[in-house]
Amino acid sequence: MSDQHKFLLDESKLPKAWYNINADMPVPPQPVLHPGTMQPVTPDFLGVLFPMNLIMQEISPERWIEIPEPVREIYKLWRPTPMYRALRLEKALDTPAHIYYKYEGVSPVGSHKPNTAVAQAFFNKEAGTKALTTETGAGQWGSALAMACNFFGLDLEVYMVKVSYHQKPYRRIIMEDFGAQVFASPTDRTQYGKSVLAGDPNSPGSLGIAISEAVEVAATSNGAKKYSLGSVLGHVLMHQTVVGLEALQQMEMAGEYPDMVIGCIGGGSNFAGFAYPFLWKKFTEKKPIRVIAVEPTACPSVTQGKYTFDFGDTAAMAPIVKMYTLGHTFVPPGIHAGGLRYHGMAPSVSALVDHGDIEGRAVKQVPVFEAAVQFSQAEGIIAAPESAHAIRVAIDEALECKKTGQKKVIAFNLSGHGHFDMGAYEQFLHGQLQDYEYPAEKVAEAMTHLPQVPAMA
Amino acid sequence: MSDQHKFLLDESKLPKAWYNINADMPVPPQPVLHPGTMQPVTPDFLGVLFPMNLIMQEISPERWIEIPEPVREIYKLWRPTPMYRALRLEKALDTPAHIYYKYEGVSPVGSHKPNTAVAQAFFNKEAGTKALTTETGAGQWGSALAMACNFFGLDLEVYMVKVSYHQKPYRRIIMEDFGAQVFASPTDRTQYGKSVLAGDPNSPGSLGIAISEAVEVAATSNGAKKYSLGSVLGHVLMHQTVVGLEALQQMEMAGEYPDMVIGCIGGGSNFAGFAYPFLWKKFTEKKPIRVIAVEPTACPSVTQGKYTFDFGDTAAMAPIVKMYTLGHTFVPPGIHAGGLRYHGMAPSVSALVDHGDIEGRAVKQVPVFEAAVQFSQAEGIIAAPESAHAIRVAIDEALECKKTGQKKVIAFNLSGHGHFDMGAYEQFLHGQLQDYEYPAEKVAEAMTHLPQVPAMA
Repeated sequence: MSDQHKFLLDESKLPKAWYNINADMPVPPQPVLHPGTMQPVTPDFLGVLFPMNLIMQEISPERWIEIPEPVREIYKLWRPTPMYRALRLEKALDTPAHIYYKYEGVSPVGSHKPNTAVAQAFFNKEAGTKALTTETGAGQWGSALAMACNFFGLDLEVYMVKVSYHQKPYRRIIMEDFGAQVFASPTDRTQYGKSVLAGDPNSPGSLGIAISEAVEVAATSNGAKKYSLGSVLGHVLMHQTVVGLEALQQMEMAGEYPDMVIGCIGGGSNFAGFAYPFLWKKFTEKKPIRVIAVEPTACPSVTQGKYTFDFGDTAAMAPIVKMYTLGHTFVPPGIHAGGLRYHGMAPSVSALVDHGDIEGRAVKQVPVFEAAVQFSQAEGIIAAPESAHAIRVAIDEALECKKTGQKKVIAFNLSGHGHFDMGAYEQFLHGQLQDYEYPAEKVAEAMTHLPQVPAMA
Repeated sequence: MSDQHKFLLDESKLPKAWYNINADMPVPPQPVLHPGTMQPVTPDFLGVLFPMNLIMQEISPERWIEIPEPVREIYKLWRPTPMYRALRLEKALDTPAHIYYKYEGVSPVGSHKPNTAVAQAFFNKEAGTKALTTETGAGQWGSALAMACNFFGLDLEVYMVKVSYHQKPYRRIIMEDFGAQVFASPTDRTQYGKSVLAGDPNSPGSLGIAISEAVEVAATSNGAKKYSLGSVLGHVLMHQTVVGLEALQQMEMAGEYPDMVIGCIGGGSNFAGFAYPFLWKKFTEKKPIRVIAVEPTACPSVTQGKYTFDFGDTAAMAPIVKMYTLGHTFVPPGIHAGGLRYHGMAPSVSALVDHGDIEGRAVKQVPVFEAAVQFSQAEGIIAAPESAHAIRVAIDEALECKKTGQKKVIAFNLSGHGHFDMGAYEQFLHGQLQDYEYPAEKVAEAMTHLPQVPAMA
């Protein structure tokens, strides 16, 4: 135990391998199904969108996957990231708990997203890919991938939800700074985009539409372009484990081990990146740990959804996977944590929730911002609305310790800063932020559209 | 010499004292004159606006001023800041030079400004001040002081230039997050503001007007409120020396000593904070160093101004000091580096330029953004437009080394990130950014309004 504020790792301590939880999963993996035939897909099918080296990572049973030197060289521009003990927050809460947070907001684009963006750009470059396509909502993922493609000399087309393209230009400009082409989706560059515009020339776009456009461009490029996704997939989550592997070392520096680790979940990547290395310790060394995945009540896939087979995307064009889902046609309310508005959840996170290794927790938007403001006033850092979900539960757990007198060690992942999200803070500070209950009826309706897959062996 | 990217200091290496260059100035200090009588001011006069403990720092001849523990505790939330070697930029430039940069953008508000804001809030609290007033343009200084006042339980009124209040709301919201009251200046809260509004109800405001309002509120508060300034004054620059004192340790870790240090100058504080500790080594240990202060051609006080007595503010209400000035009535073009639009320069920086210890360098806006984009594409970090002025000269010096084959060591201060300034990058990337020559005629006109001060002994 120490009273330091920060635990810094020299770059020599940057992990040399990612942790692949496939090796230690307590349950066997479920097949990934073709969206048309509903039969298990082959690597060839995925090969239209992804390079073979990333597909092999997706299905690898190896516990450790080496981080290539060129990726580590880029990581070193901001990694290892600091881990903090929130001494001032502890004092403000008057709690006996010790609160630690890993801070990924120090990356050049302000979030954890570059951890996989850099890896994906590298492996695509290695595989001969000339250009990538992707979608982005407010631009957090797009700006990370733009930076990564810039570093490895890959072209990038970003399909950005039109309403964000116009209303939240800052991250778009970052993408342009890094040389990416950014299009307001729906565009007339794809068949799907044209069909949307034919129905509604003023369509504001949606993440689902943007995904479909990015996928279509890659799929029809005769192999010249590949598609890149910022969460959900196994290799994406694995690239994020550099976060938790650093955190393990930093908790050792602090002389404590967490009783619980906490992260927010949208697709699952920042959460898994932080938590899976602690689960590795649990699975292989029997080190007990509570692992809490926090989601918005407006889009509560693991606390209210069903663990079943569903399409990965709204348009029913992506593969079908077994996951916690609210139904692929479910459209959540417009909460400010845009990164947490996914209808489903990463298959590995879902399987671990189902198996009891991960607890889900749903929190409302207004209490989340209350926690974010309290955190900033104690620690200075203004968190991204997504990350603030983890802060909310960390504070709740610390207040519980105050009640019970227990001196627990709480660690959470602060996955990004909120400097691009100040509009949401303004609404909160001026009492204009809306809260959302669990939209039970909309979910029930969406559940009627789940795909009817053949019974699995 | 090392090939590391980052040089991190443990928080035990956080400096315990600020460096006060007064102790080593090669020329005697010039008197500060009362704006009305034009006679040297007394501490009592300054005491209306500032607490006595800060006034004593302003005139102290001691080389080291202890950093109080409560200030160091807050500093530790983000300090020591990292120092980087720009290995990828060196490679992109194909230069034999080694380029280092100190990165102050990791502070919670994204700039170096909290280094003095926290100190000023602490010393005011110690002196019994209940509330501070200040002005801010785009909000960089205001957000830093808001955070600092929040930490020490001081109220804060910020007079924010009206056009920025409406057009650049993000930093305003940060101030509100930290509990500050932010007013669009000109307001009807002051006599001066009312007089401006009487003349022009739609006045967009200016930094000069906002300063006058903040000063008036403090001066007419019967001692309840004090005024706080983010640059120019000696104690403000001194609080920033924590930057250079860390950099000295980090250069030692790197096993090199800079041939030159570079910073941008508006009022002079980030520059002085970085450079003065290197000048300490020059003055006391004869360690040679080139010190380059970079300013915009649109507002080139040290390269084109006159070293003479002038008012510190536009409204001729602030004390008169000897400094490089373009004339207090000079209004520079609306360049995006708003922090560099001051008509004068800190007296100590001015004296050191005059004495030949500091070189001035003026650069144009468009080449500055070219450098900023090149830097971001190599190193990932998107710099504040102000800091990008230092990048421009660092790159120019590195390219000069490429020509001559000299392997110089270049170190600059990257005083903040540009995440709140992406509009300027957008204009640049879309070819809409205007360049500015030196506005010689406007300066000549402003020079006719210099105060006629009595001859000094």
